[in-house]
Amino acid sequence: MLADMEVKHLPIESLVKLLTKLPGLGARSARRISLHLLKNKENLLEPLAQQLLQTAKHITFCEICGALDVITPCHYCLDPKRLEKRAICLVEDVADLWAIERSNAFFGHYHVLGGTISALEGRGPDMLNIDSLMKRIESQQYEELIMALNPTVEGQTTAHYVLDQLRDYPIQVSRLAFGIPLGGELDYLDEGTLTMAMETRRMVTT
Amino acid sequence: MLADMEVKHLPIESLVKLLTKLPGLGARSARRISLHLLKNKENLLEPLAQQLLQTAKHITFCEICGALDVITPCHYCLDPKRLEKRAICLVEDVADLWAIERSNAFFGHYHVLGGTISALEGRGPDMLNIDSLMKRIESQQYEELIMALNPTVEGQTTAHYVLDQLRDYPIQVSRLAFGIPLGGELDYLDEGTLTMAMETRRMVTT
Repeated sequence: MLADMEVKHLPIESLVKLLTKLPGLGARSARRISLHLLKNKENLLEPLAQQLLQTAKHITFCEICGALDVITPCHYCLDPKRLEKRAICLVEDVADLWAIERSNAFFGHYHVLGGTISALEGRGPDMLNIDSLMKRIESQQYEELIMALNPTVEGQTTAHYVLDQLRDYPIQVSRLAFGIPLGGELDYLDEGTLTMAMETRRMVTT
Repeated sequence: MLADMEVKHLPIESLVKLLTKLPGLGARSARRISLHLLKNKENLLEPLAQQLLQTAKHITFCEICGALDVITPCHYCLDPKRLEKRAICLVEDVADLWAIERSNAFFGHYHVLGGTISALEGRGPDMLNIDSLMKRIESQQYEELIMALNPTVEGQTTAHYVLDQLRDYPIQVSRLAFGIPLGGELDYLDEGTLTMAMETRRMVTT
């Protein structure tokens, strides 16, 4: 009887199963989303399916920086105004690039590493887009490389490795400031962040 | 420039926007999922899109009980063994039906109300599948109606309403037991549940 049930329910079961493969979704969320989609076939499920196919068809990784766009090279790389800044920002992932773009705090080129060096997960530097970064730095007249890597062990290991590779290049390397996040409360902060914030404190003019 | 960017990124932006319409997904989760899908085009994005269309094409609401299935009447309603039990279980939503099926604690027919009576959200009894429930109870020889409605104000209001409608019908009406959930800790339980568990306590044989 149970096997019979499963066969009959197959399309929903398969959908739920596929949805649980998405980051952050468990069986419960997947079921809830499936049900919501099935209750809104015309205005949500079908548009979503079409949009997925549409996106898959048009979106590609930029051959230069590794960002996602409808064209390659992407519009960040093609924009001549961004080159004027002579700065290139190194990020781990496209999501980090998007975050920086939302902040409006940077207007230069990007380079997406595609991850971090991780001994635990067996990811060496050869699996990241480091060679292509070196080639870009050699061929373009960048003045500054801003390392916007995450303040994790892996992120910082990767930052050290990249810094080491760049020793003989005439490029200034910087990293994002570590410290107390705006709106954060000292009481809830981890000791590492507090120590870092204390050590890199800035003088204020009185 | 910003407008330009949005146009160029359109497929991703539209995908993220659609995903935020799903229950439980905010902008951040939607971006994370989009990125994950785009990085796994062949083995996740495309199968998901196809599965969505496939599911939309084949799944329908059962004309008798309101459950979701590939056929209508659904296989719960068509199964002659389920009718033998002479019990019908009233649930608010298809998700509740699935939960009860997973528990393997019930093997009769279902009836999906499609929601609850809610003064706050302007949902009256006429917007629920109550008429069809009455017709089923009239025409079939059910002996028991099990109300598996949620222990919320709306769920219990709905239960009272249904109970009132059934006054003149020769059918036994029951409701699921309220009490302490298995694995729950008294210390973390709300007072309402504890009070209910105390009042409906059962004697144990010594």
